Amino acid sequence: MEYRKIKDEDDHDVVDTDLESLKGKSHTVASSNIAMATLGVGSSERINWKRKGVVTCALTILTSSQAILIVWSKRAGKYEYSVTTANFLVETLKCALSLLALTRIWKNEGVTDDNRLSTTYDEVKVFPIPAALYLFKNLLQYYIFAYVDAPGYQILKNLNIISTGVLYRIILKRKLSEIQWAGFILLCCGCTTAQLNSNSDRVLQTSLPGWTMAIVMALLSGFAGVYTEAIIKKRPSRNINVQNFWLYVFGMAFNAIAIVIQDFDAVANKGFFHGYSFITALMILNHALSGIAVSMVMKYADNIVKVYSTSVAMLLTAVVSVFLFNFHLSLAFFLGSTVVSVSVYLHSAGKLR
Amino acid sequence: MEYRKIKDEDDHDVVDTDLESLKGKSHTVASSNIAMATLGVGSSERINWKRKGVVTCALTILTSSQAILIVWSKRAGKYEYSVTTANFLVETLKCALSLLALTRIWKNEGVTDDNRLSTTYDEVKVFPIPAALYLFKNLLQYYIFAYVDAPGYQILKNLNIISTGVLYRIILKRKLSEIQWAGFILLCCGCTTAQLNSNSDRVLQTSLPGWTMAIVMALLSGFAGVYTEAIIKKRPSRNINVQNFWLYVFGMAFNAIAIVIQDFDAVANKGFFHGYSFITALMILNHALSGIAVSMVMKYADNIVKVYSTSVAMLLTAVVSVFLFNFHLSLAFFLGSTVVSVSVYLHSAGKLR
Repeated sequence: MEYRKIKDEDDHDVVDTDLESLKGKSHTVASSNIAMATLGVGSSERINWKRKGVVTCALTILTSSQAILIVWSKRAGKYEYSVTTANFLVETLKCALSLLALTRIWKNEGVTDDNRLSTTYDEVKVFPIPAALYLFKNLLQYYIFAYVDAPGYQILKNLNIISTGVLYRIILKRKLSEIQWAGFILLCCGCTTAQLNSNSDRVLQTSLPGWTMAIVMALLSGFAGVYTEAIIKKRPSRNINVQNFWLYVFGMAFNAIAIVIQDFDAVANKGFFHGYSFITALMILNHALSGIAVSMVMKYADNIVKVYSTSVAMLLTAVVSVFLFNFHLSLAFFLGSTVVSVSVYLHSAGKLR
Repeated sequence: MEYRKIKDEDDHDVVDTDLESLKGKSHTVASSNIAMATLGVGSSERINWKRKGVVTCALTILTSSQAILIVWSKRAGKYEYSVTTANFLVETLKCALSLLALTRIWKNEGVTDDNRLSTTYDEVKVFPIPAALYLFKNLLQYYIFAYVDAPGYQILKNLNIISTGVLYRIILKRKLSEIQWAGFILLCCGCTTAQLNSNSDRVLQTSLPGWTMAIVMALLSGFAGVYTEAIIKKRPSRNINVQNFWLYVFGMAFNAIAIVIQDFDAVANKGFFHGYSFITALMILNHALSGIAVSMVMKYADNIVKVYSTSVAMLLTAVVSVFLFNFHLSLAFFLGSTVVSVSVYLHSAGKLR
């Protein structure tokens, strides 16, 4: 349950735009173009690569430490806080951090068209959509447990990898080479293999409605991710912190609605912060930072890099857990990790020229 | 035990040559050269491809039907024949079939230097080596069970895939592209994943002597296969049936020794054919035909194709067993099969030009 919450957090950082207006445009707005507009091509490419590398590493480290915090908090005893209030605080913290970054930028560079906070209806109208998609997916999540158990759901969540790849191709119209597609299928297989345990076969008995819901959820998750990338890249010169700010404002709003729907009684009776601990605070900080890292990856890299980054993070977590918590790694984990490693290699070796 | 016997049979069809004399030569003796010597290049390439396809398909079908015969024979009740006598008969049958093919060729084409049965010491001196390697590997097999159980040994046998690839590169000096190497690692991971069950993790507790023996056995098996290819391709124009005949003669001799060492008492007391049934006869026929198919694949294709062919056969067997014996396929099987399929694609897509 807690792990799920954290994984979904990633999908939360979705901004969006009018997809109609993006058609046929989005694929020309590569991240390299962003910098090329402001800098010379040679040095801009280098800066771009560096930035891409930094945000990808940050996302990988933050995501894997997320899972470790969860294990730690579980060892420390089950926490009883409302998930919706924590999500709301994550959005609020992300909003605050974006504003903090912006005030520094305003101080150094002055207020420009690209970094001003004020916006137009045309720019902002699509921002609530990913948050809405997320709310809808969260709702479905309560129903899918009528059809699959929690470990089975973890397995089915790897369908997100495939749905992200397919929607990335269809909506953003970006091409992957055949070798990269092979790598992507392997990434999905490798991640699933690494998670196999003695009960995993039960997932094969999932009924048709269960499969349908899992696929719909994977499509919602993939769509939210790809939509975010489309929005963020639609205005390449727009400062990412402004884009994040508006994204997170709507995140706060939708999470406020979620509190009212799901946890109104608990919050009214026991208070907003009931069940919070030091670890809860750490987890909220970690979620906020990873959320910002996801946005950065969307801006400077893409959804494919995001998927690889979070998948590698899952493996890193397991390896670190061996040292921290005396975890035992299974043969399936070693096989899955090897397949994921080969997949990462293929993604880079198979680049279209 | 029976499955092992059948898999090892593949390694049995090993002929060999003086490797010293092959050094630096072997990699120029590709199968395409064989035909080019006798035919025009265009049509010879086509004939070669056709021949390669036919022998590869034959090997795949024969190998998968082997495993099905084993399941069938197990269902019919445990058979109590001596494995060594059955192996001896397999060699004898292969010998007879090679002679039969030769008499037809002599009738049609007349006796030539390439298809005459008589040989020189120089040609024949290396032929006993693979049979000897096989005997040595068989001996080791009895000791390894002190360190791993039978299902664990099945898992460790997938090391053969890697050892074959490495020795193919080192001894035959043939190059695989990086993408093909990636495919080969995936083939090993995929086959192992497909075989995973709830007890597989025990293999990770294998002690150092157990690992050492498994690796030595994988190297022996890989070496025998690569050595066979080297011998058969050393004289490209020599008729394959003559090469097979000499190979199988030594196979018979070494299996006769094995009967004396391992099953002398049983054969002396109960007779050579004790415990034989109709299924035993079918299995011997199947082994003989697969053995010949392995030789053909070595002649017209290579060890890499052989490994892919027998791996795909393993997956085919499982799928056919679903219909024949109501087998249930595990999630691990589906994941492993997908990884193997991608691996086959990568092997073909990654061809060096």
